[in-house]
Amino acid sequence: MFYTLKWEGDAVSFIDQRILPLEEVYIRCTDYEQVADAIKTMVVRGAPAIGVAAAFGIALGAAKSKQSTIDGFKEEFVHICSVIKGTRPTAVNLFWAAKRMEDLFKLLILETQDIQKIKDRMVAMAVQMYDEDVEINRMIGVNGDEVIEDGMNILTHCNAGALATTEYGTALSVIRFAHGQGKKIHVYSDETRPFLQGARLTMWELMKDGIPCTLLTDNMSGHMMANKKIDLIIVGADRIAANGDSANKIGTYSVAVLAKYHNIPMYFAAPLSTIDLKTPEGDDIPIEQRPLDEVKKVNGKYICPPEAQAVNPSFDVTPNELITGIITDKGIIYPPFGPAIRSLFEGGAQ
Amino acid sequence: MFYTLKWEGDAVSFIDQRILPLEEVYIRCTDYEQVADAIKTMVVRGAPAIGVAAAFGIALGAAKSKQSTIDGFKEEFVHICSVIKGTRPTAVNLFWAAKRMEDLFKLLILETQDIQKIKDRMVAMAVQMYDEDVEINRMIGVNGDEVIEDGMNILTHCNAGALATTEYGTALSVIRFAHGQGKKIHVYSDETRPFLQGARLTMWELMKDGIPCTLLTDNMSGHMMANKKIDLIIVGADRIAANGDSANKIGTYSVAVLAKYHNIPMYFAAPLSTIDLKTPEGDDIPIEQRPLDEVKKVNGKYICPPEAQAVNPSFDVTPNELITGIITDKGIIYPPFGPAIRSLFEGGAQ
Repeated sequence: MFYTLKWEGDAVSFIDQRILPLEEVYIRCTDYEQVADAIKTMVVRGAPAIGVAAAFGIALGAAKSKQSTIDGFKEEFVHICSVIKGTRPTAVNLFWAAKRMEDLFKLLILETQDIQKIKDRMVAMAVQMYDEDVEINRMIGVNGDEVIEDGMNILTHCNAGALATTEYGTALSVIRFAHGQGKKIHVYSDETRPFLQGARLTMWELMKDGIPCTLLTDNMSGHMMANKKIDLIIVGADRIAANGDSANKIGTYSVAVLAKYHNIPMYFAAPLSTIDLKTPEGDDIPIEQRPLDEVKKVNGKYICPPEAQAVNPSFDVTPNELITGIITDKGIIYPPFGPAIRSLFEGGAQ
Repeated sequence: MFYTLKWEGDAVSFIDQRILPLEEVYIRCTDYEQVADAIKTMVVRGAPAIGVAAAFGIALGAAKSKQSTIDGFKEEFVHICSVIKGTRPTAVNLFWAAKRMEDLFKLLILETQDIQKIKDRMVAMAVQMYDEDVEINRMIGVNGDEVIEDGMNILTHCNAGALATTEYGTALSVIRFAHGQGKKIHVYSDETRPFLQGARLTMWELMKDGIPCTLLTDNMSGHMMANKKIDLIIVGADRIAANGDSANKIGTYSVAVLAKYHNIPMYFAAPLSTIDLKTPEGDDIPIEQRPLDEVKKVNGKYICPPEAQAVNPSFDVTPNELITGIITDKGIIYPPFGPAIRSLFEGGAQ
């Protein structure tokens, strides 16, 4: 099959998601700057995958450090983390993963002066985070199974699949698990301009798994809902605020408003690491503005006058009142989301 | 500047809207089959432009007929009309224009046996319909002026501009007139997948006229509305039913639902020839399903696995309850649209 990202001992490899599905090419990053660049240019994307990529990048940077003193090593480590954290602002998994690595580093330098030992522990932690992500995604699929009924037509937006995570995906993990259970389902995939993750990545993943699926342009989903072609919506998330407001790929908010208007259930699927208790509500989530040529060009060619003005907000925020439920690795939470999220972090859920 | 379509005596010329804005190429059709093909393949598109193109195509076919008997000429005329009417099913202007030509033909063959005289009158009628369309579009702009206030940010979808008509446009005629009056306005243009009329045509037209404008992907407009960046929406229409339900380019319905949710006024702009009293309501409007490669390819290259399933409904229907007003050449009509439309056709409006 394929892998989204892989620890290779002295490098990190990624499938190049910018050129899928027409070409399946892997990019091998041999230093942390290359990993940072891969995150920034969307060789790898998807909140959970960005999290693990960040951990790999930090581990790679630490492992390849030539510093011989703890102070020098510490200084370089801080720089490595700041470069990795400077890549993309919205997905909180990036900061969550970096913080786990930073916290471990702080602990280790209290414990030992042995730089090689610290490096080995950093690498082991990054590999552990990869393995944890696989298990977490699988649990999201298992937990979400109850929202999918036999015969349903399910709309998804962007790619919250294996390519957005280590394996299985978040929204697509729920779909994969239901399909694996023998439920007859059909998926509509929004193409998801400008980066076309739905057309290029979600369709590719679903077709590889033999899950029936149909491609839509983003502006068709309202028409399909009005014609009762869609029974359920499941999407991923890049950051969920403490009150349940959820940032996801641009266009998710429009889907959520349309879902509300047509009384169609709208679920977000995400690991606990996507929920950020330090972000009180959606307005506090920074929205990444990406290069305008992503909007103005497709397949390398302008689709508008080259000197045209454009905007490119990469995410939008769906307020909690438009969300039916959030499917996590620890169970599904329902409104009111604030208390449900607090209870989840206190270990009260499931 | 440019022209959308032009009667050339022995041919009809069109600017090729499939390759704008990067190339400005005109296509010269020397027989009615070529005109039919130009309509079908979207060399020319936009309801009013399709209407005039149909009249030109029928006139060209009649003028070039080699029939020497009235019966032979009549038989060929019926065939020409059926080929032209078989090109695109949704825009009613096509059938309206063909019917005007057919009605004139029926009248003429009662009046005269002189085939050349009939041909000349058919050509004169088609040219007259072109001139009328210019005047009608201008009046739509004048009548719509009252809905635009200084400083407004206006969203439009698809292209309802000069390229969709003979001159001025419908929705863009309103915008052009307001801009010409010195109102400071700014236009957001949805790119309008799959054919990208917003990115390719609307941006090109507005930039040529020096009207400030910004390109959006279709999935961004909800986010922009939530952030109070849009004050007003004006779009064109391909067919308006007797109760005001309005078919327009796919995605218009989603914009209308979003507009309702955010309390933003949503106007349609169209000539009376777009209102079809014989279509009682939106459900009676046939929705054209276009080739799937329009969705699956951009700039000639696949954006999804080549064997992917897709759908391509070219239009959707906005029910009258989501419409603030319809701007016509005879004035603006408001709900309840059924009585307002009847009154308009009885000459009661304005």
